[in-house]
Amino acid sequence: MVYVTRREIFSASHRLFNPNLSEEENNSLFGKCNNPNGHGHNYTLEVTICGEVNPKTGYLIDLKLLKQIIIDNVINKVDHKNLNLDVDFLAGKIPTAENIAIAVWDELENKIPNGKLYSIRLLETENNYIEYKGKNV
Amino acid sequence: MVYVTRREIFSASHRLFNPNLSEEENNSLFGKCNNPNGHGHNYTLEVTICGEVNPKTGYLIDLKLLKQIIIDNVINKVDHKNLNLDVDFLAGKIPTAENIAIAVWDELENKIPNGKLYSIRLLETENNYIEYKGKNV
Amino acid sequence: MVYVTRREIFSASHRLFNPNLSEEENNSLFGKCNNPNGHGHNYTLEVTICGEVNPKTGYLIDLKLLKQIIIDNVINKVDHKNLNLDVDFLAGKIPTAENIAIAVWDELENKIPNGKLYSIRLLETENNYIEYKGKNV
Amino acid sequence: MVYVTRREIFSASHRLFNPNLSEEENNSLFGKCNNPNGHGHNYTLEVTICGEVNPKTGYLIDLKLLKQIIIDNVINKVDHKNLNLDVDFLAGKIPTAENIAIAVWDELENKIPNGKLYSIRLLETENNYIEYKGKNV
Amino acid sequence: MVYVTRREIFSASHRLFNPNLSEEENNSLFGKCNNPNGHGHNYTLEVTICGEVNPKTGYLIDLKLLKQIIIDNVINKVDHKNLNLDVDFLAGKIPTAENIAIAVWDELENKIPNGKLYSIRLLETENNYIEYKGKNV
Amino acid sequence: MVYVTRREIFSASHRLFNPNLSEEENNSLFGKCNNPNGHGHNYTLEVTICGEVNPKTGYLIDLKLLKQIIIDNVINKVDHKNLNLDVDFLAGKIPTAENIAIAVWDELENKIPNGKLYSIRLLETENNYIEYKGKNV
Repeated sequence: MVYVTRREIFSASHRLFNPNLSEEENNSLFGKCNNPNGHGHNYTLEVTICGEVNPKTGYLIDLKLLKQIIIDNVINKVDHKNLNLDVDFLAGKIPTAENIAIAVWDELENKIPNGKLYSIRLLETENNYIEYKGKNV
Repeated sequence: MVYVTRREIFSASHRLFNPNLSEEENNSLFGKCNNPNGHGHNYTLEVTICGEVNPKTGYLIDLKLLKQIIIDNVINKVDHKNLNLDVDFLAGKIPTAENIAIAVWDELENKIPNGKLYSIRLLETENNYIEYKGKNV
Repeated sequence: MVYVTRREIFSASHRLFNPNLSEEENNSLFGKCNNPNGHGHNYTLEVTICGEVNPKTGYLIDLKLLKQIIIDNVINKVDHKNLNLDVDFLAGKIPTAENIAIAVWDELENKIPNGKLYSIRLLETENNYIEYKGKNV
Repeated sequence: MVYVTRREIFSASHRLFNPNLSEEENNSLFGKCNNPNGHGHNYTLEVTICGEVNPKTGYLIDLKLLKQIIIDNVINKVDHKNLNLDVDFLAGKIPTAENIAIAVWDELENKIPNGKLYSIRLLETENNYIEYKGKNV
Repeated sequence: MVYVTRREIFSASHRLFNPNLSEEENNSLFGKCNNPNGHGHNYTLEVTICGEVNPKTGYLIDLKLLKQIIIDNVINKVDHKNLNLDVDFLAGKIPTAENIAIAVWDELENKIPNGKLYSIRLLETENNYIEYKGKNV
Repeated sequence: MVYVTRREIFSASHRLFNPNLSEEENNSLFGKCNNPNGHGHNYTLEVTICGEVNPKTGYLIDLKLLKQIIIDNVINKVDHKNLNLDVDFLAGKIPTAENIAIAVWDELENKIPNGKLYSIRLLETENNYIEYKGKNV
């Protein structure tokens, strides 16, 4: 078994707030992340696949293919977008890094042709990152 | 003469468009950067001061002081903000990296107590950055 | 379950030697790390918490809170300090990266209000790092 | 148990193709990686050892020793080399990152004097990396 | 005047030798860089343009356009190539980082539609880089 | 003219204080950098040489030679040392990054066999760096 990781970058804006809570509660929970006009990040997304190496190619998966799957299913939907308003797979969710990572997992889980999805790592800044490995881990 | 640089990070959203142009012209000029709901970046700001070393301290300028000047005059105004809507010193400007760098220069130029401002470098992503050294350079 | 990581930096000096051994044995074991006047590093500390996402906030833990816990319990005690002489939780220990990581784990283990401590990663240089996940892993 | 990682860099060239396949099949499988005159990378190799800390030294393993083991057994054989033609432990293998990582594991597995080999991580570019943890993981 | 920089990455192989010199002289001059089967690098190319900001766009130059000019004229010719054998604009040159940087300058100098070429910076490894600013600087 | 840069890393401890001033004045000027038992950093040193490319080699200077000059004259004197107590070329100086950079310039200025010394850049942390280009710049 090997673990293959592909890194992609996207730039997006978001605002953290829970529409079911009062303004005061939102400010208390989210502080400056609740700025009404939003803020943004360059997000680094690392997608890790695990599985066996194909002896014919020496690849677990062709990274050009993995890159294309990530771009088609995730990057094109989030890059240069507002994560609260523009992204179908985040609709109705508070776009924290935790929730984005879980939603990206759900988008990609069934679209990996060789090997299986092992981990989604999402870096929001150089100081903060999230990892998600599916429901059972 | 030595050159002293302090790096700070901020996270902000913006939308690139010129209100004097048609929607069609804006799309042609700014493409995905003109997304109506905006997008965002982790900006890296590098502020460089030049001058003589003070023999009493071995410093050109105390970097704790330089850090505080940058935070008070720039970071607190742009971090976790929308650069189109929330920042006084960018009002009426298209918030491209070029214009942000020039505006940061103007904010800081007269606030450096020792040495003088030499360069503002603004990285919008790991692939794109701007440098500005004042009107005459 | 998600894994949330917060990175902090500190700058400290140390000297590696075992006071129960002779100078010759210490030189043989620690080489240039045993320089009598010490040397130092910019340490990068990564603290990882794991647990469930709170649906009210979309957070496992508010990273501003996690940052504050790390600063209060670790960074303020080690930053700009001598790890052999100035740090209560390292007293009597050889301040190798291994021992520092384990001691930081012990400092933080019971202070995480949401989720639980999963990993301490300590980078001493860009080429060397340690990870510790508690006694049973 | 602690995990200790040492990073080393090497620069090498390679060409991806399977000599048992036609030129057409190779082009289809490997694309530009099949350029007949090769291409190359700065590879980053991270070797992780796990085990108990020695109370006499505070080390799992002396990193100067681990560095030397990696240089003698791997770096001196691959740095400034052609991975298809010059490296005994890659002979007959397609030099994908997956196959290189597995071969490095096999080179190092029995040469670690304290602790045991836990992981080989090989970064081919800043966007692509492989991890291998042995046959049973 | 502002300075705008775009970064691109390419992976290539090369061998350093001077065909007018003996094998002995080449070994003495180039050491392991003269490996007959070559070696390779991930090169980082930074292209800096200087000029005035266009008030209509807030851009010196649209970075998507600058990116495309660099890809069409440089990256597509060198990425996944052998710099000794595959690149027209390096034919007959020893492909040192110095000579590559100068040749990239010559390729790009007349192809910048707004502003003018200010600097080519080429990083061969994280420890070695070259900068070239044209014949007169 | 090309500019060639070599990067080296060293780890050292220091304490910032001026022996001609009172303890109170030192605390006011240097704050936590005046910790009596010192602190430390991983310093990144970048040495830039400028000059003409030698057509015989395509090099301004062989980087293996430049590396050796930096190691012999600087790194071996400062790595794993206390900059206040162990370094001849810093004796009597407050070891601020400014003073270290200037002292390194003075150590190297006359030891470059091809081209001439153009710049010393010293990074104390990822957020702070100094550049020095000699007395007249």
